[in-house]
Amino acid sequence: MTHPLFEKHRSTLDGALAAIATRGYWSAYPEMPSPKLYGETAPEDGRRAFEAHKGQHFELGQPGQTGWHGGEISPYGVELGTSYPVCTPDALIEAAQTAMTEWQAVGAQGRTGICLEILDRLNKQSFEIAHAVMQTTGQGWMMAFQAGAPHAQDRGLEALAYAWREQSFVPAEAHWEKPQGKNPPLVMKKHFEIVGRGVALVIGCGTFPTWNTYPGLFAALATGNGVIVKPHSNAILPAAITVRTIRAVLAENGLDPDLVSLCVTDKRATTQALATHPAIKSVDFTGSNVFGQWLIDNCRQAQVYAELAGVNNIVIDSTDAYKATLGNLAFTLSLYSGQMCTTSQAIFVPAGGIDTDEGHKSYDEVCADLARAVERFLSKPEVAHAVLGAIQSNDTLERIALADSGELGQVVLASKTLENPDFPAARVRTPVLLACDAADERLYMEERFGPISFIVKTADTAAAIALSERVVATHGALTVGVYSTRQEVLEAMTKATWRSKVALSINLSGGVFVNQSAAFSDYHGTGGNPAANAAYADSAFVANRFRVVQRRYHA
Amino acid sequence: MTHPLFEKHRSTLDGALAAIATRGYWSAYPEMPSPKLYGETAPEDGRRAFEAHKGQHFELGQPGQTGWHGGEISPYGVELGTSYPVCTPDALIEAAQTAMTEWQAVGAQGRTGICLEILDRLNKQSFEIAHAVMQTTGQGWMMAFQAGAPHAQDRGLEALAYAWREQSFVPAEAHWEKPQGKNPPLVMKKHFEIVGRGVALVIGCGTFPTWNTYPGLFAALATGNGVIVKPHSNAILPAAITVRTIRAVLAENGLDPDLVSLCVTDKRATTQALATHPAIKSVDFTGSNVFGQWLIDNCRQAQVYAELAGVNNIVIDSTDAYKATLGNLAFTLSLYSGQMCTTSQAIFVPAGGIDTDEGHKSYDEVCADLARAVERFLSKPEVAHAVLGAIQSNDTLERIALADSGELGQVVLASKTLENPDFPAARVRTPVLLACDAADERLYMEERFGPISFIVKTADTAAAIALSERVVATHGALTVGVYSTRQEVLEAMTKATWRSKVALSINLSGGVFVNQSAAFSDYHGTGGNPAANAAYADSAFVANRFRVVQRRYHA
Repeated sequence: MTHPLFEKHRSTLDGALAAIATRGYWSAYPEMPSPKLYGETAPEDGRRAFEAHKGQHFELGQPGQTGWHGGEISPYGVELGTSYPVCTPDALIEAAQTAMTEWQAVGAQGRTGICLEILDRLNKQSFEIAHAVMQTTGQGWMMAFQAGAPHAQDRGLEALAYAWREQSFVPAEAHWEKPQGKNPPLVMKKHFEIVGRGVALVIGCGTFPTWNTYPGLFAALATGNGVIVKPHSNAILPAAITVRTIRAVLAENGLDPDLVSLCVTDKRATTQALATHPAIKSVDFTGSNVFGQWLIDNCRQAQVYAELAGVNNIVIDSTDAYKATLGNLAFTLSLYSGQMCTTSQAIFVPAGGIDTDEGHKSYDEVCADLARAVERFLSKPEVAHAVLGAIQSNDTLERIALADSGELGQVVLASKTLENPDFPAARVRTPVLLACDAADERLYMEERFGPISFIVKTADTAAAIALSERVVATHGALTVGVYSTRQEVLEAMTKATWRSKVALSINLSGGVFVNQSAAFSDYHGTGGNPAANAAYADSAFVANRFRVVQRRYHA
Repeated sequence: MTHPLFEKHRSTLDGALAAIATRGYWSAYPEMPSPKLYGETAPEDGRRAFEAHKGQHFELGQPGQTGWHGGEISPYGVELGTSYPVCTPDALIEAAQTAMTEWQAVGAQGRTGICLEILDRLNKQSFEIAHAVMQTTGQGWMMAFQAGAPHAQDRGLEALAYAWREQSFVPAEAHWEKPQGKNPPLVMKKHFEIVGRGVALVIGCGTFPTWNTYPGLFAALATGNGVIVKPHSNAILPAAITVRTIRAVLAENGLDPDLVSLCVTDKRATTQALATHPAIKSVDFTGSNVFGQWLIDNCRQAQVYAELAGVNNIVIDSTDAYKATLGNLAFTLSLYSGQMCTTSQAIFVPAGGIDTDEGHKSYDEVCADLARAVERFLSKPEVAHAVLGAIQSNDTLERIALADSGELGQVVLASKTLENPDFPAARVRTPVLLACDAADERLYMEERFGPISFIVKTADTAAAIALSERVVATHGALTVGVYSTRQEVLEAMTKATWRSKVALSINLSGGVFVNQSAAFSDYHGTGGNPAANAAYADSAFVANRFRVVQRRYHA
């Protein structure tokens, strides 16, 4: 009695299960926005679907609706004007709780099949979602397509694969027969029911409204929970499209669509009341330390999976590919104007400079060469706009201005304002590079979100490694990097990352970047330093989202 | 390059892995204290080993020792007089942290092999440990042997099997090759290192010093963590023997024994400072709500796995085996004088009575018949002493006296003080049964630990089921039971337990009891109601005790 949707998507699930076991390259959803892969009319259909949302009420048919709310501001200056249903949280919670009973009865296999169908349907909407992501976050088109659609879907599928694997270990029933010597054995029949913990709240962020939302969403949903998605106030549309599709697939399968809903509010207090509601049993969050820590401190009734701020950093000791290293770093610092949670903020360089294949380079030369590399990389406007995108928030614009003023350190490369010919009102800024001394900890040892990086002068390589470890252990990081031609340096850095628990990229000089994290292969976050208390994705990310309730009787 | 101890114990591990997958009956360690199974001299050797601890310093060779502390009082009135090393917590923490580096390097397979060897060695000490458990907890001999030794070892092995399964999913390395169309593929080599979260603290309880300690101990140890065992102040010896054996096996394998240590203190403040120390990353606890909740509220730096108090309960609707049902309940209420965290405290009986194979029985008749069944079961002194054991704490003695006074409800069966001929100073009490109305919630709706049970009169069966659900949801429970000949009642109770998340035993009338939980098959606790935030054992119990740190580079 395999669920038909489980059967339909079995090869996708099997691929994902094999991928999380081997952690080699694998992807279920094509990352190229190509008509050959997505259908000849897909790009235009997706564009039109996106355009059709502009200025409209986004109908979801949710319970408890009291009005409409919108107000997203596009970093590209595009007028969006979509408004979304505002529903009372209590109505959403109650409806989700009611819907959970039949969702539990569907069983792990059925839930997995339906989640696979949802992902497949979201994949078919990739162009529409990509436009929504681009226009709400300021990502460039290619990133918006890849990170917003197929890569986000891969991350959702990854979480789903973990959830299925853990649930599949729980037998539905057992025959328990204990020998009693010469007496008849004790025989019991046992049943094991997987039950969700309760309604899940998934709080999205403003920069990656799908990529950072799908892991928690699918982990919670697959394990039997109703889910309320609370998007960032400026990135609602990608979440709304996602929720509508989920609700449609649920309804098509005879299930109550209110299992999954969208919660839109402009009041922090509403989100706080929702997050601390006794019925909310898990909270997934990506965002600031302030609100994230508030959630951890106050949502005592729930499991909180939080990805917070950090100070990603890189140690440069030496390289045998100086030019390629600078090019790799220039791309990392420029991509989406440094608005990735994985972008490097602090680059530690020994005061005595570094050995390279182009001779010894002083600290000042490294600063100047990296600045030139960024300038060169962004010298063609079409490359610059595709890579940089636009600045997501006014706060980031202000931080850039502050950095440019020299108050945060010596300006090695000033930020420039660019004009995007396609979007004249777009807020485009190039990265700012600052130089400072390791002792100036107040400058670089807090997250300065956006295209702001510090080239930090350290006493030597050993000091740089020790500093990197301390930064990660105390302030957190999702990524660190090291460049060295010396094995002992790589080993010391490796051991430092084991202690501080952060992912390490070594000598990246080609087409892979420290700020990129590949689903099924790279763990995004370790869950072991202050930047995140969970990883995308592993068993720990799913195993505590459901519980097993047994019953037994004499057989 | 399989670790020799992994190879040596592979069949035990394979058996455990198969058992957690099928949840049928399985056990690695014989539960009968038989010389045929444990060796002809094992009983006497074990007795002598136990006797040799009396009045002695229990040497462990731990760092930071400042003195000795003992003072365990045997519920059997036996003079123990063993004292244990008092060491500064900071010294134990620092030594464990240091030892963790090489423990990490041993790898998951090596750690699993060494833990299997430890369990095997503990099994060989079963008689010694059983005497230690009996004399510190007041358990009867058979229970002390079974629950204190082989069943505790099974629970440790079960946690170890989960820990190994989860760790075995993490590949040591991966080859990642991403196609780039007509260009050469991107190729990365990746390494994945399993690292423990940090030093674990395992806080034992006074009634089951090994059974409730081994799951957390082996889960934490196997996943790469150092462990500090903080036993209950009156049940130190079983933990001390365990820790000494672990340290010996570590040393034999060339490892730093300070990875695992015993922390003895008579100051609550010392335990509190230890539990909230920044280096302590997990806390396993079994015990009172007051201290457990304090740990959950204050140990924000650690994962807390807590088994707390609850109000286990049973709904009696009807039965076709009245006599056997009463006999089964009489055993449950008597076993270890009701001092099990799984003993039923509230028995819900409809005001209109119940239908049985011996005709309709009024509420009052059920009360009287259950009282008689307990009396009859305990009428033979040798049975009574073997089953009851002795009362572990003065607090429990006082609670029994309070119940006997009639202040907690109408006394249906008064507790009796028995004289144990083998241990004249033993504190032996028979169970007290009270009758009260469902409305008298203050009487039965908090845990009254010990041989104190309430037969609660409910309006009808539906009210009993609703009350059971509410008690579990609000006060927690590890076990509930139901007796009914009607399918709709069983279904309603089953659904109630899915909502309140508690294990259900149905119509137990034979040789299995609601307060018994079999390793590998029965989940002990669901982790979904206030009685426990984790289950023994499941993936969630182990998966968050380690983290994975990756590194990657161009291949």
